[in-house]
Amino acid sequence: MTGWLEALERLSGSRAKAGLTRQLRPRPADDFVVDLAGNDYLGLSAHPSVVAAAASALAAYGLGATGSRLVRGSTDAHSLLEADVAAFLGFSSALVFSSGYLANLAAVRGATAVCDLIVSDAYNHASLIDGCKISGRRTVVAPHNDPTAVATILDAHPGQPAVVVTESVFSVDGDLADLATLHEVTSSRGALLLVDDAHAVGILGPGGAGGVAAAGLAGQPDVIVTATLSKSLGGAGGVVAAPEPFIRHLIDTGRTFIYDTALPPAVVAGVHAALQLTRDADDRRTVLTTRADQVVTRLTEAGFPVARPAAAVLSVLAPGPEAAVAWAADCRDRGVAVGCFRPPSTPDGSSRLRLTLNAGVPDEAFAHALDVIVECAP
Amino acid sequence: MTGWLEALERLSGSRAKAGLTRQLRPRPADDFVVDLAGNDYLGLSAHPSVVAAAASALAAYGLGATGSRLVRGSTDAHSLLEADVAAFLGFSSALVFSSGYLANLAAVRGATAVCDLIVSDAYNHASLIDGCKISGRRTVVAPHNDPTAVATILDAHPGQPAVVVTESVFSVDGDLADLATLHEVTSSRGALLLVDDAHAVGILGPGGAGGVAAAGLAGQPDVIVTATLSKSLGGAGGVVAAPEPFIRHLIDTGRTFIYDTALPPAVVAGVHAALQLTRDADDRRTVLTTRADQVVTRLTEAGFPVARPAAAVLSVLAPGPEAAVAWAADCRDRGVAVGCFRPPSTPDGSSRLRLTLNAGVPDEAFAHALDVIVECAP
Repeated sequence: MTGWLEALERLSGSRAKAGLTRQLRPRPADDFVVDLAGNDYLGLSAHPSVVAAAASALAAYGLGATGSRLVRGSTDAHSLLEADVAAFLGFSSALVFSSGYLANLAAVRGATAVCDLIVSDAYNHASLIDGCKISGRRTVVAPHNDPTAVATILDAHPGQPAVVVTESVFSVDGDLADLATLHEVTSSRGALLLVDDAHAVGILGPGGAGGVAAAGLAGQPDVIVTATLSKSLGGAGGVVAAPEPFIRHLIDTGRTFIYDTALPPAVVAGVHAALQLTRDADDRRTVLTTRADQVVTRLTEAGFPVARPAAAVLSVLAPGPEAAVAWAADCRDRGVAVGCFRPPSTPDGSSRLRLTLNAGVPDEAFAHALDVIVECAP
Repeated sequence: MTGWLEALERLSGSRAKAGLTRQLRPRPADDFVVDLAGNDYLGLSAHPSVVAAAASALAAYGLGATGSRLVRGSTDAHSLLEADVAAFLGFSSALVFSSGYLANLAAVRGATAVCDLIVSDAYNHASLIDGCKISGRRTVVAPHNDPTAVATILDAHPGQPAVVVTESVFSVDGDLADLATLHEVTSSRGALLLVDDAHAVGILGPGGAGGVAAAGLAGQPDVIVTATLSKSLGGAGGVVAAPEPFIRHLIDTGRTFIYDTALPPAVVAGVHAALQLTRDADDRRTVLTTRADQVVTRLTEAGFPVARPAAAVLSVLAPGPEAAVAWAADCRDRGVAVGCFRPPSTPDGSSRLRLTLNAGVPDEAFAHALDVIVECAP
């Protein structure tokens, strides 16, 4: 079957015509670029304490975890982080995965052990959508950020235990789900609420405990939280925090937990150091708040209306996919890294720049980067 | 909905009664245990060159990749590793993922862009099974390691482009797929062959290039290979190696590639150092071959017949799940770590010890470990 390569080439040609080809652009260790593209919101990924903790664990354990969590991969570093991240997020238990994608697959599928119906926000992340798919459960997609619509869907399925799946801060536009209202809807109807807090942890809530904590829902017995360890926490991996019986369920049955090599102990230890810094990082969170105002003012004045980011993610509409690519490329050529999101990465089929705020970027560099984005606009 | 916690407790109770509860046992950095449980087959995870390369990249890049591969996460370390691992496995292109699980999800789903039918070995790994499921394609499960049965299935679906999915060395029993015959079956019928080489890379084939290379199939235009970077290569992550158009397809459309934070540069660099060591590790591979003979002799003489491992994985049947747990626990109490595999981790519903060979374990410790396993037998 060599015809498959020609078939793939044809598919590739179609994507090229639609402006949807993606290109890897490897960066050197020091690329002297202002980072408005990554998710290192608090600027902790290269913090000396984070690097030192990772280096220390690397020397002590070696590089790999050498096995799955249940066979050989669980180290003291994993259990220390899990205890601390559970307390940080306000739940009794937490479980670390080797990626946020795998954590979301496990959490959504795990919830369907006791739920017959999934109600999933239309703008949910690919990993949540794949979690719905892989669970095999009936999934109803709810209009974006619309608790009333969720209520209507739940009411239309009486007697069916349901889980409502949403992000707190959505990954492309950076808008905030109305979690308090959503929880009123779910709790009053006996449904579970599963929240992907990846883009809010470290930024929202007391001590950066996340969007769920900010909404007063941390530790609620009918709430499950997932998050990444790769954004504000500067490392890699994912976590599920929930009441203990759910974590127990994932340990016993979560396929993406059981059958996956554990996160390297050095990464775990580095993330743990970042978590400790995060609690005391109100100064960095203040920087992000100030910059959120700055970016809205600068771009709106320049004729690119943007919504104020709820956390550290926002997006700027582009006329089309090619224009978005050119805009991002021009910014990069002038030393500013910005995200370029095109279908199918955008929930509504539009193309845009996605900008992120990073407290580790110096003030002057940030202001300059905003100028560059405006000057490079199509 | 607090009834969900009671429902989870009931499920947990059922698992406990069936002897299927799983327990995390975190290990300290130096647990003084003989490791016959992990997948660090060549003993490279703590090799000074691997640790030094990881430490150097950690200092240069910081801990996290700070974004997805396409947005901010691709570093020079990633592209250097990808070029080298492609050459090592004998393919034109390779793509690194943050876990082997995610690589398998992408590879299987990616193949279904041009295949309407999946034929999946009955003993395939959970990640391959989930890949079939998430692709939504019709999947026929073939009897384990039976190329004739695969031929029959393909012949029963004329005109349907198909991909045959298998492991090279199976992860529980350690037996070797008959890849050469399987490829004759697939290539003569216009089907693709997708091989998960996770447990053979580093061990089989010239320079440890894996089971696909050992079967003479490296670089074949109708073959896709996946592997982990967490076993012989001592780190974490996964990789897909294939003809370039398929890798291009995954970059453009692979959800578990696009929407996932990149593997940390320090892990990438450490794995790359391990790859360079692996090429020249014939001495370590000789140790594994000798030990494969040793373990078969020792256990068979003691009344526990085991099949000779094709690589570095083998299993010993236990009378039942509780007996397997007790056997493994007794070994651990005497300083020997062994795997304990129970349903649903075992393909045939039986329970067993899973033993792995690790060239980093000293000869005396290995011989002692075999004694302990025999003495602790139920």
